[in-house]
Amino acid sequence: MSKIIRFHETGSADVLKIEDLPLTEPGEGEVRLKVEAIGLNRAEIMFRRGQYLEEPKLPSRLGYEASGTIDAIGPDISDIKIGDRVSTIPSFSMGAYGVYGESAIVPASAVAHYPESLSAIEGTAIWMPYLTAFGALVEIGQLKKEDIVLITAASSSVGLAAIQITKSAGALAIATTRGADKKQALLDAGADHVIVTNDEDLAERVMSITSGKGANIIFDPVAGPMLATLADAAAVGATIFEFGALSPEATPFPLFTSLAKGLTLRGYTLFEITKDARRLGRGKQYVYEGLQSGALKPIIDRTFTLDDIADAHRDMESNQQKGKIVVTV
Amino acid sequence: MSKIIRFHETGSADVLKIEDLPLTEPGEGEVRLKVEAIGLNRAEIMFRRGQYLEEPKLPSRLGYEASGTIDAIGPDISDIKIGDRVSTIPSFSMGAYGVYGESAIVPASAVAHYPESLSAIEGTAIWMPYLTAFGALVEIGQLKKEDIVLITAASSSVGLAAIQITKSAGALAIATTRGADKKQALLDAGADHVIVTNDEDLAERVMSITSGKGANIIFDPVAGPMLATLADAAAVGATIFEFGALSPEATPFPLFTSLAKGLTLRGYTLFEITKDARRLGRGKQYVYEGLQSGALKPIIDRTFTLDDIADAHRDMESNQQKGKIVVTV
Repeated sequence: MSKIIRFHETGSADVLKIEDLPLTEPGEGEVRLKVEAIGLNRAEIMFRRGQYLEEPKLPSRLGYEASGTIDAIGPDISDIKIGDRVSTIPSFSMGAYGVYGESAIVPASAVAHYPESLSAIEGTAIWMPYLTAFGALVEIGQLKKEDIVLITAASSSVGLAAIQITKSAGALAIATTRGADKKQALLDAGADHVIVTNDEDLAERVMSITSGKGANIIFDPVAGPMLATLADAAAVGATIFEFGALSPEATPFPLFTSLAKGLTLRGYTLFEITKDARRLGRGKQYVYEGLQSGALKPIIDRTFTLDDIADAHRDMESNQQKGKIVVTV
Repeated sequence: MSKIIRFHETGSADVLKIEDLPLTEPGEGEVRLKVEAIGLNRAEIMFRRGQYLEEPKLPSRLGYEASGTIDAIGPDISDIKIGDRVSTIPSFSMGAYGVYGESAIVPASAVAHYPESLSAIEGTAIWMPYLTAFGALVEIGQLKKEDIVLITAASSSVGLAAIQITKSAGALAIATTRGADKKQALLDAGADHVIVTNDEDLAERVMSITSGKGANIIFDPVAGPMLATLADAAAVGATIFEFGALSPEATPFPLFTSLAKGLTLRGYTLFEITKDARRLGRGKQYVYEGLQSGALKPIIDRTFTLDDIADAHRDMESNQQKGKIVVTV
């Protein structure tokens, strides 16, 4: 038997149940992971609430990111062996393969070795953040040192990854956060400028920082009414990546600003990278090199135990974190 | 003196006044056109109503497209001479240089010879339609024969130009129109499929035509609530060009569909082409070659006289036209 987190109805963190389920065997193309650490993502909160791109089939597992040791492999798998230390790359259905638990079966294509220098806690905090930011900024956005990158919700693990990737390219990183309490952490993480949106006018500050030019790459998981403000903060010809739906409010399309500035609004998820073998190959290479050189360094906010999974979700929902929330198993 | 159309307040077609104003001389970098024909555009309707990208300074001239003969040139202009037959390329402020009238002063950079085989009426019906569609489909969209192009408001001069350009590339053109009365005209203009949106489900029909794949280039001047339908009709990775704001309703951003399909929503106006010398050069070359080969053929809906300018605007607002409405002078 093995402890597995599932939910039988969508809703608040209270719906997460710790259940004892029989250990199952990996099928064709699958491997089994003895989980050591689980990285939490907004996607799981949205999925638990029934607000994610994927609809849960109840009762449902959940979870995209885990690190651990391979303890069983399906037939005909040659590049992974029992005992390998790996972490999961989100490229699968969360409902079919959710990794919250002591044991997780995932597609063999969705695990990758992580550098030996990283702990299991750090190992589960790399793929979602870095591949998400890599895909938008580097792979699609062709990030170069002349770019001015505006990163919203910058204290999230993906936001911090975007700051590190931006700085690693020599570009300018402008980070936003709602409250002043996270400002120093964002400066410490490498942001050139931090805009505290509760106290400052976002578009005005971006225009002031950029001498009226605006940001030419904007990386935003929030959407909602703030998209209009981001369009105001955008340079002529800018690209705004929308990669989430954190705002509970509707998102008006900033039509006139988009026409006047020739803006590109790009819906994006990391699956564009993780489900494309060539892009994923480039992404993994990029992340390995960045971790090795020190340009990329996963930032862990705090850890919880598996028994406290609901508290871990509540903690993420409180928006206090600066970096990755990790659950140890 | 010369008859010039101006408006002293924004509003319905009634605000258009025919005024006798003194003939003025072109300044530096400007030329004067003895106008023979004026091509009408939605932009002028929006501008007259105070709903355009540019705000009119009252009293205001209006108009982007005219054909005629150069009858005065400013200092230091060498590539245009008196007597040249030219038409205007919209690349200027409509308020500063509006061409509705017997005489118009425009920037020298904004006039181009049109093929001798064309009448003045046809000569004023080429640049706005073909350069607008060229810029989105060819210059930015990199149109190729495998593409499936969905063209909304397809009976407009720009819509018809988009059909011709799509067919000229060997790609598939799906045109939409509200009423069945324009269906045959769109088939005659080269559309492979016509969807009558009052009678048919747009997204369903596109999916049926494309075996569930969707359109990968969508070219839409309407926006409003229909944008969600266009996102439903889009293929994975599609680009939706939004180049107008004809809908009087708000435009919700199709967030979840954009995330799930990795859609690009691209705000666009032809000024991206006409204010960039290299792109304009490529566009002019493209249009000249297309007119010469017969791949591009301006479609004129009907003509009015200058005295009936208000009726010409009302005619455009009635949405009955199939092609360019032209005013002869």
